[in-house]
Amino acid sequence: METIFKNLQENPPLVHNITNYVTVNDCANIVLAAGGSPLMADDIEEVGDIVSISSSLYINVGTLNKRTIASMIEAGKTANAKGIPVVLDPVGMGASKLRNQAVEALTDQVRFSVIKGNMSEIKAMYTTCKNAGGVDVQEGDMISADTLEEAIALAKKVAVKFNSVVAVTGPIDIVTDGTRVKTVHNGHAKMSRITGTGCMTGSVIGTFCGANPDQVLDATATAISVMGIAGEMAHKIVSDMGEGTGSFKRYLMDGVSLMTYEAFERGAAIEVR
Amino acid sequence: METIFKNLQENPPLVHNITNYVTVNDCANIVLAAGGSPLMADDIEEVGDIVSISSSLYINVGTLNKRTIASMIEAGKTANAKGIPVVLDPVGMGASKLRNQAVEALTDQVRFSVIKGNMSEIKAMYTTCKNAGGVDVQEGDMISADTLEEAIALAKKVAVKFNSVVAVTGPIDIVTDGTRVKTVHNGHAKMSRITGTGCMTGSVIGTFCGANPDQVLDATATAISVMGIAGEMAHKIVSDMGEGTGSFKRYLMDGVSLMTYEAFERGAAIEVR
Amino acid sequence: METIFKNLQENPPLVHNITNYVTVNDCANIVLAAGGSPLMADDIEEVGDIVSISSSLYINVGTLNKRTIASMIEAGKTANAKGIPVVLDPVGMGASKLRNQAVEALTDQVRFSVIKGNMSEIKAMYTTCKNAGGVDVQEGDMISADTLEEAIALAKKVAVKFNSVVAVTGPIDIVTDGTRVKTVHNGHAKMSRITGTGCMTGSVIGTFCGANPDQVLDATATAISVMGIAGEMAHKIVSDMGEGTGSFKRYLMDGVSLMTYEAFERGAAIEVR
Repeated sequence: METIFKNLQENPPLVHNITNYVTVNDCANIVLAAGGSPLMADDIEEVGDIVSISSSLYINVGTLNKRTIASMIEAGKTANAKGIPVVLDPVGMGASKLRNQAVEALTDQVRFSVIKGNMSEIKAMYTTCKNAGGVDVQEGDMISADTLEEAIALAKKVAVKFNSVVAVTGPIDIVTDGTRVKTVHNGHAKMSRITGTGCMTGSVIGTFCGANPDQVLDATATAISVMGIAGEMAHKIVSDMGEGTGSFKRYLMDGVSLMTYEAFERGAAIEVR
Repeated sequence: METIFKNLQENPPLVHNITNYVTVNDCANIVLAAGGSPLMADDIEEVGDIVSISSSLYINVGTLNKRTIASMIEAGKTANAKGIPVVLDPVGMGASKLRNQAVEALTDQVRFSVIKGNMSEIKAMYTTCKNAGGVDVQEGDMISADTLEEAIALAKKVAVKFNSVVAVTGPIDIVTDGTRVKTVHNGHAKMSRITGTGCMTGSVIGTFCGANPDQVLDATATAISVMGIAGEMAHKIVSDMGEGTGSFKRYLMDGVSLMTYEAFERGAAIEVR
Repeated sequence: METIFKNLQENPPLVHNITNYVTVNDCANIVLAAGGSPLMADDIEEVGDIVSISSSLYINVGTLNKRTIASMIEAGKTANAKGIPVVLDPVGMGASKLRNQAVEALTDQVRFSVIKGNMSEIKAMYTTCKNAGGVDVQEGDMISADTLEEAIALAKKVAVKFNSVVAVTGPIDIVTDGTRVKTVHNGHAKMSRITGTGCMTGSVIGTFCGANPDQVLDATATAISVMGIAGEMAHKIVSDMGEGTGSFKRYLMDGVSLMTYEAFERGAAIEVR
């Protein structure tokens, strides 16, 4: 994985994010923390120009609307034409018809290098069936040691269906291109007590893939692990200090911005299966 | 009030927020800190679906525009049909014709369980007269011991006019349904030196009401007190440490996320009048 | 400079910000930290009303779209008619045709008291030529001791072209009205490792100019220096503590909110040239 970090340091990527207005600030800051530079633009008339100077594109449908859906598709097509990695975060997939239709339109017209979601979202992408319950993962969809094999099998199918690396996040994270599989055993449950850790993970994947367009699966697993290690560190500090979620968010950002390859190597719990 | 907390813990609500893009991240984080799960969506084509899986709806007109006004009305109607609590935050009411018209349209078509604003906004809702001066409360409208009786009388009238619990925030907060009245004597002036404490209070009201749809007045007073206690704690820390508003915000979020019923009981200064 | 601070304290300005959704929360908080009150509104039907109660207007084209461009122009015209200072932040100027056209339309129809950007953006405003590379400054455009004279000459030309105070930010900041020139030697490179320091600087300029409409050049240099001093303080703390960018942002906000005239006088490194 050392080359993944080296490429990022030597060629800091410009990461174009089209994302929701809830966590967009966190996404911009985490791209910077991870070593990239964020670009944010979502008017259909300028997304082409912005993609043309970007190293990767991250699309997050969190607070989509009809205006931005069109911009996402336009940006995705331009990114495909340019050959840069495109990451999809189908936030809340299954929770509304509009989101389902938007994600269908996106996957019809854009080839995604990475699709990243929780198990509920990834399931909904497979079946395009309504499976509502908000943007959090459904309890029955939580990946655990017991359900891991089943979850991997589904992730592989989705990867094949969309010709994409699929990352399923949860207590155990799965990254697969349909053949190769890595699981990531980093992170802490507290990460779901602040908004935006999922979105930030997507932006970090965009950052790592932007610098490593030829190693998308490994870059994605690395990015998820980096976020998880930072989450573990943040949890340790707030537990020791008796602090709450405001502090947790700050330490999470600190952790990513201070991450070295050495700290990653010590902390990473990535298994090849 | 113990049941208010117990209901929240046992049935963590999904809180749909349609709010401004200035403080939306803080709103999402405070819902999580308070024990709920935030949902954010504002396209008219999906707000119905999102309301249908929500426990409550919080509408904040902070950076409204014609697109989102229509979504707010649609979401509010769906929430009324479903019977879940709807909270209105008429931010800046009185500061522009568009806001006045939007709030009129909202109150015409949606029944609100709670209307929460500062005295300037609540006054403007009563008179629908222009009373501009930004989104902060006007000096003459600040609730103090001297003006409390008068303020309560007005709050009661607004509660009756809109068939709603009315919460008037200020140095002393008033919560009334037109008959019952509670005043909350928590909080610190420093809370107005960061943006979003008003919006966050609205989201916390949405969270407490989402878990307590049958005790809206008590849930609202509790939510306001919880925010106030957290503000007092944050003020104490930054004063002791000589820290500024960036730190204050962090401790405020920490305080809500660490709030227990015991801490609430110790800190709450709620009077029944 | 003491009168600049005194005016701000005695007449806290209402600062209307029309800005991007990435850093809008930071902009609102920094206005409060600097001693003003932020107003945020971007619907074309209400910007006129909001400008009419404001002391200054800050326009930032960061995540512009066709809807908000029209609102920016309308707000700018109203502010000109009212005679309050208007500050332009041409974020990413040169990076897309849409931005170039928007900035051209804005400067055609609105007279700006201050135009603030990095050298790449200010250059693009001079030539209106494509000079893309994201919203960060291009390496060749970084102001250093070697390139300072050349940079000042260009800044003066842009000031004359737009009849405006021009502020070029970088390791050394230049503020000029085409005749008078001040350089500011505060700040730290770490400020570019979090998003929004540029936008926040723009909002602080709006705050200081709102309270000092007759001393726009001096107010702008003061505002930039205040941000720079806070950045130096934040850098010192995170370096001592081994903390990252999440902490840096908090201390930056703290620094501005705790800034006194005495601390400013001690820390300011402003040269009259």
